[in-house]
Amino acid sequence: MKISVSRKEHFNAAHRLFNPNWNDAKNEEVFGKCNNPNYHGHNYELIVTLTGEIDKETGYVYDMKLLSDLIKAEVLDKFDHKNLNLDTIYFKDLNPTAENIAIVIWQILREKLDPKFDLKVKLYETERNYVEYPAN
Amino acid sequence: MKISVSRKEHFNAAHRLFNPNWNDAKNEEVFGKCNNPNYHGHNYELIVTLTGEIDKETGYVYDMKLLSDLIKAEVLDKFDHKNLNLDTIYFKDLNPTAENIAIVIWQILREKLDPKFDLKVKLYETERNYVEYPAN
Amino acid sequence: MKISVSRKEHFNAAHRLFNPNWNDAKNEEVFGKCNNPNYHGHNYELIVTLTGEIDKETGYVYDMKLLSDLIKAEVLDKFDHKNLNLDTIYFKDLNPTAENIAIVIWQILREKLDPKFDLKVKLYETERNYVEYPAN
Amino acid sequence: MKISVSRKEHFNAAHRLFNPNWNDAKNEEVFGKCNNPNYHGHNYELIVTLTGEIDKETGYVYDMKLLSDLIKAEVLDKFDHKNLNLDTIYFKDLNPTAENIAIVIWQILREKLDPKFDLKVKLYETERNYVEYPAN
Amino acid sequence: MKISVSRKEHFNAAHRLFNPNWNDAKNEEVFGKCNNPNYHGHNYELIVTLTGEIDKETGYVYDMKLLSDLIKAEVLDKFDHKNLNLDTIYFKDLNPTAENIAIVIWQILREKLDPKFDLKVKLYETERNYVEYPAN
Amino acid sequence: MKISVSRKEHFNAAHRLFNPNWNDAKNEEVFGKCNNPNYHGHNYELIVTLTGEIDKETGYVYDMKLLSDLIKAEVLDKFDHKNLNLDTIYFKDLNPTAENIAIVIWQILREKLDPKFDLKVKLYETERNYVEYPAN
Repeated sequence: MKISVSRKEHFNAAHRLFNPNWNDAKNEEVFGKCNNPNYHGHNYELIVTLTGEIDKETGYVYDMKLLSDLIKAEVLDKFDHKNLNLDTIYFKDLNPTAENIAIVIWQILREKLDPKFDLKVKLYETERNYVEYPAN
Repeated sequence: MKISVSRKEHFNAAHRLFNPNWNDAKNEEVFGKCNNPNYHGHNYELIVTLTGEIDKETGYVYDMKLLSDLIKAEVLDKFDHKNLNLDTIYFKDLNPTAENIAIVIWQILREKLDPKFDLKVKLYETERNYVEYPAN
Repeated sequence: MKISVSRKEHFNAAHRLFNPNWNDAKNEEVFGKCNNPNYHGHNYELIVTLTGEIDKETGYVYDMKLLSDLIKAEVLDKFDHKNLNLDTIYFKDLNPTAENIAIVIWQILREKLDPKFDLKVKLYETERNYVEYPAN
Repeated sequence: MKISVSRKEHFNAAHRLFNPNWNDAKNEEVFGKCNNPNYHGHNYELIVTLTGEIDKETGYVYDMKLLSDLIKAEVLDKFDHKNLNLDTIYFKDLNPTAENIAIVIWQILREKLDPKFDLKVKLYETERNYVEYPAN
Repeated sequence: MKISVSRKEHFNAAHRLFNPNWNDAKNEEVFGKCNNPNYHGHNYELIVTLTGEIDKETGYVYDMKLLSDLIKAEVLDKFDHKNLNLDTIYFKDLNPTAENIAIVIWQILREKLDPKFDLKVKLYETERNYVEYPAN
Repeated sequence: MKISVSRKEHFNAAHRLFNPNWNDAKNEEVFGKCNNPNYHGHNYELIVTLTGEIDKETGYVYDMKLLSDLIKAEVLDKFDHKNLNLDTIYFKDLNPTAENIAIVIWQILREKLDPKFDLKVKLYETERNYVEYPAN
């Protein structure tokens, strides 16, 4: 009798999309405005979903206050008000697309969570673009 | 060729989280502000999803007007503007966490719906916290 | 290691629900206000989700700009500011319920997309009613 | 010590924009897609705001339940699931732009409300287009 | 050259509407479901707006981080996860309607803010009901 | 009989807050995380409101399609996917706070609009922080 619980958080960050193995023309062709060398940015909305059994004593799958604290400590403190390309270790050699950011966040949180919980990450880059990992 | 149809409704209710087998200090430690003995409350947003075949005559899986009526009669009339702990039969011995409320709503609706429909319940306790049963 | 990417678009259209094999009384009984012979309308919100592998060169599953262009060319240009019953070829003999509109959109896009991508369509007819195909 | 209270409702309707004194080419040039002779439609979101003194006995400016009932009886019953051009008396000789719809709704409600209340109407035609009467 | 800056916060609380000078029948007639003696509750969304001149040194009217801190210390700590009737000093003799809650919050914040700023409070009791003080 | 019409658009940009006349410690103290020298970013939501008389021929105050085109040409093309500090001429000597961005946008649009229209700009920097110019 498994149930999913979700917590929504957000962070604001700058980023730039480009492939260092390509020349400027190719980067411009593929990434367009997102390739701006001076960066642009987003209000990222992050939804973290855990799936598991309900604890009989508490009625919780996972305390949402603790999940919020975990996301703040492990994700927001690293990404909020940061330049994803320059200020984090994760995107030195990885293009900070929404897809890659979501997978990095999933990997960070996966290590901190009991394996008994299934973990899913949904990341809105804009109100109209979002990604889900693992696939919906 | 199955398709899912969803209807969103809402109700406003008071509740308090606590475990009667624990003392006050333990309840305070685990449930924090949610343990306030005088209750607090929420605008719950409820999304009910049915999955099934499309009826060839109507083009509907299930008439959304009838689904709305069913949710009103079976769920909202019992929970809206109520104290979940005191005014309902469901949480006399069950902690009214979002997880448990979602499962109770699922059980209430499951009995009233033809078994040919799969049923899923999503419940927002706040804009930032929600649960899904069965698990997403 | 599959991931899902989603793009939200919208269109405004008129429609009317009815079954030509039924008389007026039966249509009125089943479809109620939606059966108005002079039509009514909606702001449809459409979310298209593709699931696939991340391209190593770009960090994308699918360029959201290209997905937006595809939806505009194949769906919005046909449905936006149109009468679904009268101005499109799709609902000459098919009742334009949200369920049927979603399946038509899925079929239109499925033909235009590489089979390596899984495709899912979510369609909001109102803020409170939506459908998903294939089933969630 | 005046305070404003607001109630949000919605209705779904079809409409067409055109000026009967113009030829088709001129109507097409000015109104573009909105001039489709077979109509298109919207989910209109309507916010009605009353400003007045708080009643000492109730703590209300105006009971929101009664305001909702009034909007339903006087506006939604006339406009919801209707073709604004064909099914209402208000747009026989008046182009049903968001501006004109808002003023018509304001006039309907103004007659039904005690003059001691200031009245304001906000109407969303889409999530991105809205009007306010009187001017903000 | 005045400009307005706004900060949105929220709190969850229980309340009950009634007039102690009335009998139960009269309270039931006027306040309906909101008169439930065991309370119900809401997710209140609070928007606080300050109007003033831009500080030339900072480019701010008022630092939004400091405004958020002020609202948390002066309003949320008193109202969040509380029973407004029983757990606060403000509604011992005042009916906790949205109108009265908004005015109480305005009075609390007015004392803490430099008179050079105009102050406005907008309070959503539900997604469909809200109040503004002073009047819009 | 004036009425207001509003159009919502959005742009994504990077920025950094700082005062070049201050040392790093002072900038850090006042602007905190917003002072990050490598920039951060936002999805800015922009609402432009025009107030005027309804044109009798069209039923419009101003064609929303033309207002959208104007905002795109004059604002979005300059700010979208840009670094506000580095890529625009407006914030060379002006701190790109939400307040200053809103005033710059107001000035850009004011020059392009007939003086018969009142103009107002509302700018969301995040879902929880926004500014309005002129003051609400």
